[in-house]
Amino acid sequence: MTSVPPQPSALLTDLYQLTMMQGYFLSGLHEQTAVFDLFFRRLPYRGGYAVWAGLEEMLDTLGTLRFTEPDLAYLDSLKLFRPDFLAALRGWRFSGRIEAFAEGRVVFAHEPLLTVTAPLWEAQLIETMLLNTLNFQTLVATKAARCVLAAGTSPYGGEVVEFGARRAQGPDGALSAARAAFVGGAAGSSNVEAGRRYGLPVTGTHAHAWIESFPDELSAFRAYARVYPDSTTLLLDTVDTLRSGLPHALTVARELRAAGHELRGVRLDSGDLAYLSRTIRATLDEAGFPDVRIVASNDLSESVIAGVIAEGGRVDVYGVGTQLATAGGPGGGALGGVYKLAELDGRPRLKLTGDPAKASLPGVKRVWRAGGEEGEWAWDVLTLGDEPRAGQTVSDPTNPLRAAHLPQGLTWTDARQTVMQGGQRTQPTVSLPDIQARARRELARLPAETRRLLNPHVYRVSLGADVSALRDALTTELRAELK
Amino acid sequence: MTSVPPQPSALLTDLYQLTMMQGYFLSGLHEQTAVFDLFFRRLPYRGGYAVWAGLEEMLDTLGTLRFTEPDLAYLDSLKLFRPDFLAALRGWRFSGRIEAFAEGRVVFAHEPLLTVTAPLWEAQLIETMLLNTLNFQTLVATKAARCVLAAGTSPYGGEVVEFGARRAQGPDGALSAARAAFVGGAAGSSNVEAGRRYGLPVTGTHAHAWIESFPDELSAFRAYARVYPDSTTLLLDTVDTLRSGLPHALTVARELRAAGHELRGVRLDSGDLAYLSRTIRATLDEAGFPDVRIVASNDLSESVIAGVIAEGGRVDVYGVGTQLATAGGPGGGALGGVYKLAELDGRPRLKLTGDPAKASLPGVKRVWRAGGEEGEWAWDVLTLGDEPRAGQTVSDPTNPLRAAHLPQGLTWTDARQTVMQGGQRTQPTVSLPDIQARARRELARLPAETRRLLNPHVYRVSLGADVSALRDALTTELRAELK
Repeated sequence: MTSVPPQPSALLTDLYQLTMMQGYFLSGLHEQTAVFDLFFRRLPYRGGYAVWAGLEEMLDTLGTLRFTEPDLAYLDSLKLFRPDFLAALRGWRFSGRIEAFAEGRVVFAHEPLLTVTAPLWEAQLIETMLLNTLNFQTLVATKAARCVLAAGTSPYGGEVVEFGARRAQGPDGALSAARAAFVGGAAGSSNVEAGRRYGLPVTGTHAHAWIESFPDELSAFRAYARVYPDSTTLLLDTVDTLRSGLPHALTVARELRAAGHELRGVRLDSGDLAYLSRTIRATLDEAGFPDVRIVASNDLSESVIAGVIAEGGRVDVYGVGTQLATAGGPGGGALGGVYKLAELDGRPRLKLTGDPAKASLPGVKRVWRAGGEEGEWAWDVLTLGDEPRAGQTVSDPTNPLRAAHLPQGLTWTDARQTVMQGGQRTQPTVSLPDIQARARRELARLPAETRRLLNPHVYRVSLGADVSALRDALTTELRAELK
Repeated sequence: MTSVPPQPSALLTDLYQLTMMQGYFLSGLHEQTAVFDLFFRRLPYRGGYAVWAGLEEMLDTLGTLRFTEPDLAYLDSLKLFRPDFLAALRGWRFSGRIEAFAEGRVVFAHEPLLTVTAPLWEAQLIETMLLNTLNFQTLVATKAARCVLAAGTSPYGGEVVEFGARRAQGPDGALSAARAAFVGGAAGSSNVEAGRRYGLPVTGTHAHAWIESFPDELSAFRAYARVYPDSTTLLLDTVDTLRSGLPHALTVARELRAAGHELRGVRLDSGDLAYLSRTIRATLDEAGFPDVRIVASNDLSESVIAGVIAEGGRVDVYGVGTQLATAGGPGGGALGGVYKLAELDGRPRLKLTGDPAKASLPGVKRVWRAGGEEGEWAWDVLTLGDEPRAGQTVSDPTNPLRAAHLPQGLTWTDARQTVMQGGQRTQPTVSLPDIQARARRELARLPAETRRLLNPHVYRVSLGADVSALRDALTTELRAELK
């Protein structure tokens, strides 16, 4: 049982997209075929990879994007738009083609993750919506993957659930975060609406307020277990974790067992999680409750998870809230994905700007990804079409002086696929569990040193000689026009 | 012309709120009167104040919150809820009372910003929605205020507009951010849907893609000016800001003037904004265009704005994107607002936890704010009711050893008001421009050293002796139960 997301508004865009659209329309350029690339320039979290997320939802939105009569009436009220332009918007729909990495794949900086080929005014309008959806979900899926991989280093295992709705950036921030966290490997979310909308597993324990609503902690534990005899996780730290919460939880665990049930878990929400989880695990095991799970929360992140495990912590479920739902931490908060014109009407386009790192890559590019001899991902190369070959010279996207020769033994595949043609999806919808499974397989193919949390090995993304030659030629041409 | 926001979903909550609700219901506690306080423990951005935002929107949502039949069907599908409980949710509505600071006021750590008095199960359900709305909007309004105050230190003035939709955390993240940025003093937003939904001024220029869609930069500038002769702002850095963009913009400015129009502005999106804006201002002034405004963008923040001004930059409009829409920067990203039970059925409640800083404040509190002799805000004191008096001893909320005597000459007012009673609003709706004006007045009443961006003076928030005595008594009582 899932609900249909609310109809997206075509006005969820920047004003300048609409003023440019009208400008193209009045200048007669709007039907020229434009090619835009979506990419980012820096990996989030100072990490070695990103997990590409949000694509399936974005395609659903794009397929239904229309201007309604109230939309047009609002635009008219701004006194910026002519009646003939507004009339043309009445029949507007996206009719273009999109190539993209499949959702859940690992991706890197400087490569076109998605390419839109469409009439100029169509491609322009959708920039804001595409970036809003894909930037944030990729950022959260990557954060989730970092947390899940950190939790997976424990010899005892450990899963991650998303608990961040109360700190998320608006209600949709919470919903998108829950979806993307699942793509990146989270087992579920505490957010009930996310559960409904996306079919995610929903999960939860209880709050301190529950304990405080009863005369004492033991009565509160007993009352919860009475209502949920097979799914009770008790929060231990309302009074004192080890001296009050844990002995009371053991009492309830024994009472439940005597009645034919089992306590599901206990939760820690403050204090030293490594020390407490070790102590509690030992106590529970000794008391005959090896299957009672230990859930931990309290401002968790991939670094905290790694720290808990490094000190022998025995947490089974990490409830990651703020840092996951808002993609926080160093190098987080926002992914700087951009959307740049690469070709118009068959002519490759380039912007230079005052900052060389912000220059775009002209031309219609293809992204090739190489698998090494043991199946691990080894190298991504952008060309203007041809498959890379051993011995060819390729260069770094931001530093032409860093060149390399492609080695033997790599198997190249075209890394992207056509996901939309004529405004219609060309691939079957992929379910979220399947996307999550794809992300898991992709992460497993990354070299271990690229998955590292801190100072990872930099995965190679290179430009084929044809791409760099085109960029150099256009740069020379633009510079020549300067006085 | 504004649109009605989509109907809020009662399922936008954490699962544990619903399982606790059922637990209260089955334990016969659900109708007991609960008092919950909403507060945060640390000011965002390591700053000296926060601007309270989101209240009016939250009250609108709360007034209409209901469980629909599809909501109940989804809950039923989770196999966690009994039919009698789901039947009781069918008629559920929020019937409680809310005291709160008026939206737009300056607020500080450890004081109850909002207090809910309601039947326990009603107060419990709404926690997630309240925190989601108020945490994020307060965070963004505070960021906007910091940017606006930084811009205002220029002898030439300067305004802030919100440009962040493409980096925001989901579509609603973008909308909430645009609203809250306006509360904090932003002049408008680039987000068209935010303009419609909230009646905000919408604003924008054009993108690099516009320039690249024409044979050369000058043709592109001319084409834009032809379509928008009275509202053109030209982006200067597609090729080279000073050697190409600026001379071409001057050409167009002269052509517009010859035709009876005026160029509105130019925009910088890369390079050294202080140097470029000084140079461009001098060139424009000398050429007879003192009214052409300089708009700057490119990863701006309050610190960048302050830096540009310190070096004599001449920016008129700061387009702040990522950092404003995602509330980024040190101490940003999320506001750690919490919602804690203070009293149930007339009995004050307390949680201790393993971390003393996370202990809550029991009892039904009133927040008093003192104005000093020159009208500046001077001191906030929490009591169990009575107005503070000169000579009384008060203490720091987290360190009882830090005590002080209240001085003479302060005028105390009850800082909050009843905004909802019986589930109905008790105050007229306040318009966003009025909220923005209130925030501006409030910020003007803050001592200058409290408004400082870095290492501000800490505004005093203290506990009256009655509040600390109650906390101490309950702490002693809880500790006594420990073995």
